[in-house]
Amino acid sequence: MSEENVVYIGNKPVMNYVLAVVTQMNGGVPEVVLKARGRAISRAVDVAEIVRNRFITDVDIGGIDISTEEIVSNEGSNTNVSTIEIQLCKL
Amino acid sequence: MSEENVVYIGNKPVMNYVLAVVTQMNGGVPEVVLKARGRAISRAVDVAEIVRNRFITDVDIGGIDISTEEIVSNEGSNTNVSTIEIQLCKL
Repeated sequence: MSEENVVYIGNKPVMNYVLAVVTQMNGGVPEVVLKARGRAISRAVDVAEIVRNRFITDVDIGGIDISTEEIVSNEGSNTNVSTIEIQLCKL
Repeated sequence: MSEENVVYIGNKPVMNYVLAVVTQMNGGVPEVVLKARGRAISRAVDVAEIVRNRFITDVDIGGIDISTEEIVSNEGSNTNVSTIEIQLCKL
Protein backbone atom coordinates (compact mmCIF):
# COMPACT_ATOMS: atom_id res chain seq x y z
CA MET A 1 0.00 0.00 0.00
CA SER A 2 1.34 3.45 -0.84
CA GLU A 3 1.82 6.02 1.91
CA GLU A 4 -0.82 8.35 0.47
CA ASN A 5 -3.53 6.02 1.76
CA VAL A 6 -2.42 6.47 5.35
CA VAL A 7 -4.05 9.07 7.60
CA TYR A 8 -2.04 9.80 10.74
CA ILE A 9 -4.25 10.76 13.66
CA GLY A 10 -2.89 13.46 15.97
CA ASN A 11 -4.35 16.11 18.23
CA LYS A 12 -6.49 18.02 15.78
CA PRO A 13 -10.29 17.92 15.99
CA VAL A 14 -11.79 14.57 14.95
CA MET A 15 -13.64 16.08 12.00
CA ASN A 16 -10.38 17.12 10.30
CA TYR A 17 -9.40 13.47 10.01
CA VAL A 18 -12.90 12.35 9.05
CA LEU A 19 -12.78 14.86 6.19
CA ALA A 20 -9.36 13.58 5.07
CA VAL A 21 -10.66 10.00 4.90
CA VAL A 22 -13.91 10.92 3.18
CA THR A 23 -12.06 13.05 0.61
CA GLN A 24 -9.68 10.23 -0.24
CA MET A 25 -12.42 7.64 -0.54
CA ASN A 26 -14.68 9.85 -2.62
CA GLY A 27 -11.65 10.46 -4.86
CA GLY A 28 -11.52 6.75 -5.64
CA VAL A 29 -9.14 5.36 -3.02
CA PRO A 30 -10.72 2.04 -1.90
CA GLU A 31 -8.62 1.54 1.21
CA VAL A 32 -7.42 3.98 3.87
CA VAL A 33 -5.37 3.10 6.95
CA LEU A 34 -5.68 5.18 10.12
CA LYS A 35 -2.56 5.21 12.28
CA ALA A 36 -2.33 6.60 15.78
CA ARG A 37 -0.35 6.19 18.94
CA GLY A 38 -0.72 7.00 22.61
CA ARG A 39 -3.75 9.07 23.51
CA ALA A 40 -4.68 9.63 19.88
CA ILE A 41 -5.75 5.98 19.71
CA SER A 42 -9.25 6.77 20.98
CA ARG A 43 -9.53 9.53 18.39
CA ALA A 44 -8.62 7.07 15.62
CA VAL A 45 -11.48 4.82 16.73
CA ASP A 46 -13.81 7.85 16.72
CA VAL A 47 -12.73 8.70 13.17
CA ALA A 48 -13.38 5.16 11.92
CA GLU A 49 -16.80 5.04 13.59
CA ILE A 50 -17.90 8.48 12.35
CA VAL A 51 -16.79 7.74 8.78
CA ARG A 52 -18.71 4.49 8.56
CA ASN A 53 -21.78 5.51 10.53
CA ARG A 54 -22.36 8.98 9.14
CA PHE A 55 -20.53 9.51 5.87
CA ILE A 56 -19.67 6.39 3.87
CA THR A 57 -21.96 3.60 4.96
CA ASP A 58 -20.43 0.99 2.63
CA VAL A 59 -17.11 1.15 4.44
CA ASP A 60 -16.01 -1.85 6.43
CA ILE A 61 -13.27 -2.30 9.01
CA GLY A 62 -10.75 -4.45 7.15
CA GLY A 63 -8.66 -5.15 10.20
CA ILE A 64 -7.30 -3.63 13.39
CA ASP A 65 -3.73 -4.10 14.61
CA ILE A 66 -2.20 -2.93 17.85
CA SER A 67 1.46 -2.90 18.75
CA THR A 68 4.13 -1.09 20.73
CA GLU A 69 6.74 1.42 19.60
CA GLU A 70 9.81 2.41 21.54
CA ILE A 71 10.42 6.13 21.59
CA VAL A 72 13.84 7.51 22.52
CA SER A 73 13.56 10.87 24.21
CA ASN A 74 16.10 13.69 23.87
CA GLU A 75 17.66 12.67 27.17
CA GLY A 76 18.28 9.17 25.82
CA SER A 77 15.68 7.34 27.91
CA ASN A 78 13.26 4.92 26.28
CA THR A 79 9.48 5.02 26.54
CA ASN A 80 7.04 2.52 25.14
CA VAL A 81 3.96 3.80 23.43
CA SER A 82 1.03 1.76 22.11
CA THR A 83 -0.04 2.13 18.50
CA ILE A 84 -3.11 1.21 16.49
CA GLU A 85 -3.74 0.72 12.78
CA ILE A 86 -7.31 0.62 11.54
CA GLN A 87 -7.86 -0.43 7.95
CA LEU A 88 -10.97 0.99 6.28
CA CYS A 89 -12.14 -0.67 3.05
CA LYS A 90 -14.82 0.55 0.69
CA LEU A 91 -17.01 -2.38 -0.32
CA MET B 1 -18.45 -16.26 27.31
CA SER B 2 -19.27 -15.56 30.93
CA GLU B 3 -19.06 -12.02 32.28
CA GLU B 4 -16.27 -12.90 34.70
CA ASN B 5 -13.82 -13.01 31.82
CA VAL B 6 -14.45 -9.36 30.97
CA VAL B 7 -12.20 -6.62 32.33
CA TYR B 8 -13.73 -3.16 32.01
CA ILE B 9 -11.08 -0.47 31.53
CA GLY B 10 -11.77 2.84 33.27
CA ASN B 11 -9.68 5.65 34.69
CA LYS B 12 -7.54 3.76 37.16
CA PRO B 13 -3.80 3.31 36.57
CA VAL B 14 -2.97 0.90 33.74
CA MET B 15 -1.22 -1.54 36.06
CA ASN B 16 -4.42 -2.20 38.01
CA TYR B 17 -6.01 -3.64 34.87
CA VAL B 18 -2.86 -5.49 33.84
CA LEU B 19 -2.87 -7.17 37.24
CA ALA B 20 -6.55 -8.12 36.86
CA VAL B 21 -5.86 -9.79 33.51
CA VAL B 22 -2.71 -11.55 34.68
CA THR B 23 -4.46 -12.83 37.80
CA GLN B 24 -7.35 -14.27 35.79
CA MET B 25 -5.09 -15.93 33.24
CA ASN B 26 -2.74 -17.38 35.82
CA GLY B 27 -5.85 -18.74 37.55
CA GLY B 28 -6.65 -20.78 34.46
CA VAL B 29 -8.93 -18.52 32.43
CA PRO B 30 -7.79 -18.96 28.81
CA GLU B 31 -9.58 -15.94 27.37
CA VAL B 32 -10.10 -12.43 28.72
CA VAL B 33 -11.91 -9.60 26.95
CA LEU B 34 -10.95 -5.98 27.62
CA LYS B 35 -13.78 -3.50 27.16
CA ALA B 36 -13.39 0.26 27.12
CA ARG B 37 -15.07 3.33 25.75
CA GLY B 38 -14.17 6.92 25.03
CA ARG B 39 -10.79 8.05 26.25
CA ALA B 40 -10.18 4.77 28.07
CA ILE B 41 -9.72 3.11 24.67
CA SER B 42 -6.03 4.01 24.53
CA ARG B 43 -5.59 2.59 28.03
CA ALA B 44 -7.18 -0.70 26.93
CA VAL B 45 -4.61 -0.97 24.13
CA ASP B 46 -1.85 -0.23 26.66
CA VAL B 47 -3.15 -3.01 28.93
CA ALA B 48 -3.19 -5.54 26.09
CA GLU B 49 0.32 -4.60 24.98
CA ILE B 50 1.80 -4.65 28.48
CA VAL B 51 0.23 -8.02 29.29
CA ARG B 52 1.56 -9.72 26.20
CA ASN B 53 4.97 -8.03 26.06
CA ARG B 54 5.91 -8.12 29.71
CA PHE B 55 3.84 -10.63 31.64
CA ILE B 56 2.31 -13.48 29.64
CA THR B 57 4.23 -13.86 26.42
CA ASP B 58 2.09 -16.70 25.07
CA VAL B 59 -0.97 -14.47 24.89
CA ASP B 60 -2.31 -13.57 21.48
CA ILE B 61 -4.80 -10.93 20.37
CA GLY B 62 -7.82 -13.01 19.35
CA GLY B 63 -9.65 -10.13 17.79
CA ILE B 64 -10.40 -6.45 18.11
CA ASP B 65 -13.83 -4.93 17.60
CA ILE B 66 -14.82 -1.29 17.59
CA SER B 67 -18.31 0.14 17.67
CA THR B 68 -20.45 3.02 18.85
CA GLU B 69 -22.72 3.30 21.87
CA GLU B 70 -25.37 5.93 22.37
CA ILE B 71 -25.38 7.45 25.82
CA VAL B 72 -28.40 9.37 27.09
CA SER B 73 -27.40 12.10 29.51
CA ASN B 74 -29.47 13.22 32.50
CA GLU B 75 -30.82 16.13 30.45
CA GLY B 76 -32.11 13.70 27.83
CA SER B 77 -29.65 14.54 25.07
CA ASN B 78 -27.84 11.76 23.21
CA THR B 79 -24.10 11.45 22.80
CA ASN B 80 -22.27 8.84 20.77
CA VAL B 81 -19.21 7.25 22.29
CA SER B 82 -16.81 4.84 20.61
CA THR B 83 -16.07 1.49 22.22
CA ILE B 84 -13.42 -1.17 21.81
CA GLU B 85 -13.27 -4.85 22.71
CA ILE B 86 -9.91 -6.60 22.71
CA GLN B 87 -9.92 -10.36 23.06
CA LEU B 88 -6.82 -11.86 24.69
CA CYS B 89 -6.29 -15.61 24.27
CA LYS B 90 -3.72 -17.75 26.00
CA LEU B 91 -2.12 -20.10 23.47
